Amino acid sequence: MKRIRIIAAYDGTDYCGWQVQPNGITVEEVINRTLSGLLGENIRIIGASRTDSGVHALGNVAVFDTETRIPPERISYALNQRLPEDIVIVRSEEVPADWHPRYRSCMKTYEYHILNANVPDPTRRRNTCFVSYPLNLGDMRRAAGFLIGTHDFASFCNIRTSVEDTVRTIYELEIFERDFCGAGSRQDSREITIRIRGNGFLYNMVRIIAGTLLRVGRGFYTPEQVEEILEAKNRQAAGVTAPPQGLVLVGIEYL
Amino acid sequence: MKRIRIIAAYDGTDYCGWQVQPNGITVEEVINRTLSGLLGENIRIIGASRTDSGVHALGNVAVFDTETRIPPERISYALNQRLPEDIVIVRSEEVPADWHPRYRSCMKTYEYHILNANVPDPTRRRNTCFVSYPLNLGDMRRAAGFLIGTHDFASFCNIRTSVEDTVRTIYELEIFERDFCGAGSRQDSREITIRIRGNGFLYNMVRIIAGTLLRVGRGFYTPEQVEEILEAKNRQAAGVTAPPQGLVLVGIEYL
Repeated sequence: MKRIRIIAAYDGTDYCGWQVQPNGITVEEVINRTLSGLLGENIRIIGASRTDSGVHALGNVAVFDTETRIPPERISYALNQRLPEDIVIVRSEEVPADWHPRYRSCMKTYEYHILNANVPDPTRRRNTCFVSYPLNLGDMRRAAGFLIGTHDFASFCNIRTSVEDTVRTIYELEIFERDFCGAGSRQDSREITIRIRGNGFLYNMVRIIAGTLLRVGRGFYTPEQVEEILEAKNRQAAGVTAPPQGLVLVGIEYL
Repeated sequence: MKRIRIIAAYDGTDYCGWQVQPNGITVEEVINRTLSGLLGENIRIIGASRTDSGVHALGNVAVFDTETRIPPERISYALNQRLPEDIVIVRSEEVPADWHPRYRSCMKTYEYHILNANVPDPTRRRNTCFVSYPLNLGDMRRAAGFLIGTHDFASFCNIRTSVEDTVRTIYELEIFERDFCGAGSRQDSREITIRIRGNGFLYNMVRIIAGTLLRVGRGFYTPEQVEEILEAKNRQAAGVTAPPQGLVLVGIEYL
């Protein structure tokens, strides 16, 4: 029996999130089914991050146990032949039998992508949040500064959660922009990325942070109000949850 | 009777190209049907560029004639309420009754997007061409230099065309790169854009140029061989047609 770790990338648009559930098809379910068919065993993977419906990943992590004689690093190739094109296994490798993707300290990196333009771009609708109003990035960056560090993020947590300890550490929260295309009809268009690294995130935490920073960028909150929102420890103090399609789990580093 | 010009952006992934045809649903057909429903008239638009199946646009141009009393610049808003989310009308405006999107001199800008990385990215599969081998951008830029200017591009034209005059002028052919994401698991990934501006393009011309430059980047052709390919005036001399999903019609400027 071997334990195999896989790194999964996926376009979450057409899935009801990662975790198996009765209402629709999920990424976990498709990987389980494909792995089981490939290996001739009943495989149930254990994932690191249960991403929401419509959220993407470049590097989610999962493990499973198998008796297969396929070399561990070849499993990703064999799987990619059978998976639909919106799921790609980036890597597969053997890990110790007690290695677990959730009960370990790690650093997760997420990005939230915003298309800030006059007109929506249908070619980017699946992986950006479209925002037509002007955004003040200087204010957004000042507001972000209040969130970096170890805090009780209760204000930035969906209330539908059973988690009791809402203290987390954000190591990095950067906001940067780049011009999109740069040519022709789209000179007024830019893509803004909120990149956030931390030792763990509460339910919807990145999307609530993104929604709150968008309110700051629009001038609805001052940067200083974000410190007050944090201190309120109350979900109702913060901004709306930004839509899922802008969010991507970039990767998880285990420490 | 008024003539209205519309600027259309679309994700071409799920369409059999622009032009109405019997084998599948097209962008033109969806716009015709939606406009006809909106205006209560039988509308047949005339498009500037008949983009291929899977090719995208940020600024294709089309016109139609109507008796409607909806103000011309409001038609885009009303249309966008009814169109599927992969087609967006960027602008609508009245033009002179004899204004025709094809029989006029214009400058078209296309971009061809390449994801150059070790592993495919499922979130970008719909609008990039994935290339896993290393690319020499210096060689690609030198090769591109031979294509700029007025030439007979017969080597870069799909033979299934009735066009007799294969002389065209390329004003700009730039190749630039940017790092993608820049964080986490994707440090080895970059997006390469081939941007090309000209007074008109032959059938599949941009995709054959992209396919040929990719061969140069890989070292299969020297940059100088591209001059020979041009002089051969024979489609078989050039590289393969690059796949459609990397291509986007950025815009059309009328002179």
